[in-house]
Amino acid sequence: MAHTIKDKTKLLARVRRIKGQAEAVERALEAEIGCADVLMLVASMRGAINGLTAELMEDHIRHHVVNPDSEPDPDRARGAAELIEVVKTYLK
Amino acid sequence: MAHTIKDKTKLLARVRRIKGQAEAVERALEAEIGCADVLMLVASMRGAINGLTAELMEDHIRHHVVNPDSEPDPDRARGAAELIEVVKTYLK
Amino acid sequence: MAHTIKDKTKLLARVRRIKGQAEAVERALEAEIGCADVLMLVASMRGAINGLTAELMEDHIRHHVVNPDSEPDPDRARGAAELIEVVKTYLK
Amino acid sequence: MAHTIKDKTKLLARVRRIKGQAEAVERALEAEIGCADVLMLVASMRGAINGLTAELMEDHIRHHVVNPDSEPDPDRARGAAELIEVVKTYLK
Repeated sequence: MAHTIKDKTKLLARVRRIKGQAEAVERALEAEIGCADVLMLVASMRGAINGLTAELMEDHIRHHVVNPDSEPDPDRARGAAELIEVVKTYLK
Repeated sequence: MAHTIKDKTKLLARVRRIKGQAEAVERALEAEIGCADVLMLVASMRGAINGLTAELMEDHIRHHVVNPDSEPDPDRARGAAELIEVVKTYLK
Repeated sequence: MAHTIKDKTKLLARVRRIKGQAEAVERALEAEIGCADVLMLVASMRGAINGLTAELMEDHIRHHVVNPDSEPDPDRARGAAELIEVVKTYLK
Repeated sequence: MAHTIKDKTKLLARVRRIKGQAEAVERALEAEIGCADVLMLVASMRGAINGLTAELMEDHIRHHVVNPDSEPDPDRARGAAELIEVVKTYLK
């Protein structure tokens, strides 16, 4: 099943931001700015990857396992909602 | 202090690989391949970022703090060598 | 829904091992062994916590969302199996 | 070289808190509280381990490599201070 158009647009924006961050790290290395500054850029990129991962996992749960907003079985709906919360906590 | 040419070449190769991985994730999202496959690509990218981070931290320790291979004080040389090992363990 | 007895026994063994690792770190700090050795003990404890997290997430998916081994809907069964794989990859 | 008494007291308080968190996870599993609640307890424990790791790395840098507050070489003092910042960013 395909992602919704809205999800796809958001995910593409996130991954393009990560690509831009990689390019900034590349330029920083070429310009020989200090290691510590490069490491801070890489830390931001790592944070952006965690954000992308949390969003992809949430989309996977909603579209391919159980969508808590439309699931008729209340136990499953609650289990999926809790799982999405847990994933966000671990990846924030 | 600038990195050595050899370090810089290796670091640039790592960051260009990460940029290539971000482009692969972008193409995968555009082609609407499955979430789980996209997540595996993102996991590889995260691993590559950990590798880049460990290498940047090692370079920072060697070039801006204490280089265990040339430090005359043996306690500092050992402390820096241990720190490099610890960083690699945490980021592998 | 409660965990199966088998899952609970495995999870308790994991968490008791982590408690033992915390006690080993405590003794190491009291005995003033080197920082680097303490950091290696803490790295092992972190690995054990990732293992516990992956197992708890897998149990949560199986018992409270979708169990891929007993789910009649093949798309959901596949989605849940993929999700378990992804969680293991991210936490190994 | 031994840690200062103050550092040791703080580190022991951190590790005892982690031991207490492991005991809380153990009791939660025995009491069969929900998976999602157990996972949130484990996430707190993981955060506490990152905090302990950052503090141990900072102590190691200060006592066994270069202490930015007492180092006469200004480049090394700055390199060590930057490294401590980077470690905190990565482990927060």
